[in-house]
Amino acid sequence: MALEQLSTNKVFDGQLVKYRFKSAALGGLNAQFNLFVPANASEANKVPLLTYLSGLTCTEDNAAQKGNFFGAAAKEGIAILFPDTSPRGAGIEGETDSWDFGVGAGFYVNATHPKWSKHYNMLTHVTIELPQVLEAAALPLDFSRQSIFGHSMGGHGALTLYLNSILSGVKQYRSVSAFAPIANPINCPWGQKAFNGYLQGGIEEAKDKYDATELIKKLNKAPVHILVDYGTADNFYKSGQLLPENFLKAARDAGYDEVQVRVRSQDGYDHSYYFMSTFGADHVHFHANFLKA
Amino acid sequence: MALEQLSTNKVFDGQLVKYRFKSAALGGLNAQFNLFVPANASEANKVPLLTYLSGLTCTEDNAAQKGNFFGAAAKEGIAILFPDTSPRGAGIEGETDSWDFGVGAGFYVNATHPKWSKHYNMLTHVTIELPQVLEAAALPLDFSRQSIFGHSMGGHGALTLYLNSILSGVKQYRSVSAFAPIANPINCPWGQKAFNGYLQGGIEEAKDKYDATELIKKLNKAPVHILVDYGTADNFYKSGQLLPENFLKAARDAGYDEVQVRVRSQDGYDHSYYFMSTFGADHVHFHANFLKA
Repeated sequence: MALEQLSTNKVFDGQLVKYRFKSAALGGLNAQFNLFVPANASEANKVPLLTYLSGLTCTEDNAAQKGNFFGAAAKEGIAILFPDTSPRGAGIEGETDSWDFGVGAGFYVNATHPKWSKHYNMLTHVTIELPQVLEAAALPLDFSRQSIFGHSMGGHGALTLYLNSILSGVKQYRSVSAFAPIANPINCPWGQKAFNGYLQGGIEEAKDKYDATELIKKLNKAPVHILVDYGTADNFYKSGQLLPENFLKAARDAGYDEVQVRVRSQDGYDHSYYFMSTFGADHVHFHANFLKA
Repeated sequence: MALEQLSTNKVFDGQLVKYRFKSAALGGLNAQFNLFVPANASEANKVPLLTYLSGLTCTEDNAAQKGNFFGAAAKEGIAILFPDTSPRGAGIEGETDSWDFGVGAGFYVNATHPKWSKHYNMLTHVTIELPQVLEAAALPLDFSRQSIFGHSMGGHGALTLYLNSILSGVKQYRSVSAFAPIANPINCPWGQKAFNGYLQGGIEEAKDKYDATELIKKLNKAPVHILVDYGTADNFYKSGQLLPENFLKAARDAGYDEVQVRVRSQDGYDHSYYFMSTFGADHVHFHANFLKA
């Protein structure tokens, strides 16, 4: 799993490096990711790791370029990992036919349908493989301090990976935040299409594993740190793809108050990176509260 | 010159709007630009206008997405105008053959070569036409308070438009800043190719009008406010396309100290938007000193 360094850019006094490696989780395909390491990181001062999951059609680059995270991350001394959104080059029939399924749309699940299960394992790629690969590369990261966030499909990924890591007792992430997440995917077209495609058991299988609104009902009041922002002018929100109200209601019904689960409706913002860049620093500072505690 | 609104995005509480109009300066072609207007702008509180000129291959979008200007502009209450970098669709033979000449590479000159002179008039487009079009649209902008900045080719544009506006007595801009500007274009391949193409008199014609290093020699100590940043890991700097030292030397020889002309060498930064985003807010605050004075 040797890491090949493809490029490096100095940004806010730290380094953003793009890497490539042969991914076991993705069936042996080459995978790329970006990693921002702040200037204060060193062997003697390993820094916390915040993983950012992107939305549909994105690569590891979009949020690195447009998310407006690095000023805050440099100030807080936090590394940010940007994985890709799916395997690339699997060559599965139909995988490039849709913008919301297949390439660029891995939905952060481990596929169980035989057509997809060899390559489409973004859950394992993000939660297990990438931390292992980074650790093997002896980068100045403290893996005991991780958090996760994401946008849209990546907001779904961040919420479900976080909630599952609490439910399983692994507690990989200290906090989660999301911009315009697909918060109840079993009840929206994007999620239904993805789950019916990737999972042999379809939506029934997804309900237990990959739906934030369902997962939070099972937590039994285990402590959580969750922040969600969505915009009222977001067309995907308005067309019922995001359903943050369902998640919020499930959280309140499960006994979580607004300190533990904060869902903010941001007036007039849309689904774009302009929305995300506005609140990007705020989300990094939110995670710093827990990563540096 | 009616403005057609193509899109609008809320960002940092303000609005970024993309417009299209039929441009007289560009020979009747459609031209697009982006305009950020902060939330505090109104008919009763017109805000200053900062024009941003992009580099080679860019459109009006790149820096709006990646420049990291809006947080600072919102805080300072400053509007930012993002013009395109050339006419589009003139249909001149060869205009799309190079990435550093023709489409996406207007170099902020008024072409005098007959092949280009009908359409390639970005100087007039930026300095005269766009302010007129904005004024006619009754936007809440105070045109008596303008400044200008840019990146690479746009840094060249910003410096030369600023210096010429002082030399001509028009004083359109209160301050100028540039990221990695082409600071002495008559002495670098990019500039020589552009001037030999667009100008009937070639480099000789450019020397008097379009070279920042030459222009600053003529100022006779007229007061200026100039900030330049470039990165030491910038490959275009290293290959002699930017030549900021020539500009700096000319400024010092002309009697300007580092308060009036500040040229900063930024260790390890490259030519990318990662460099620019790092210092983007800093440049906006620099201009605020003069725009809000």
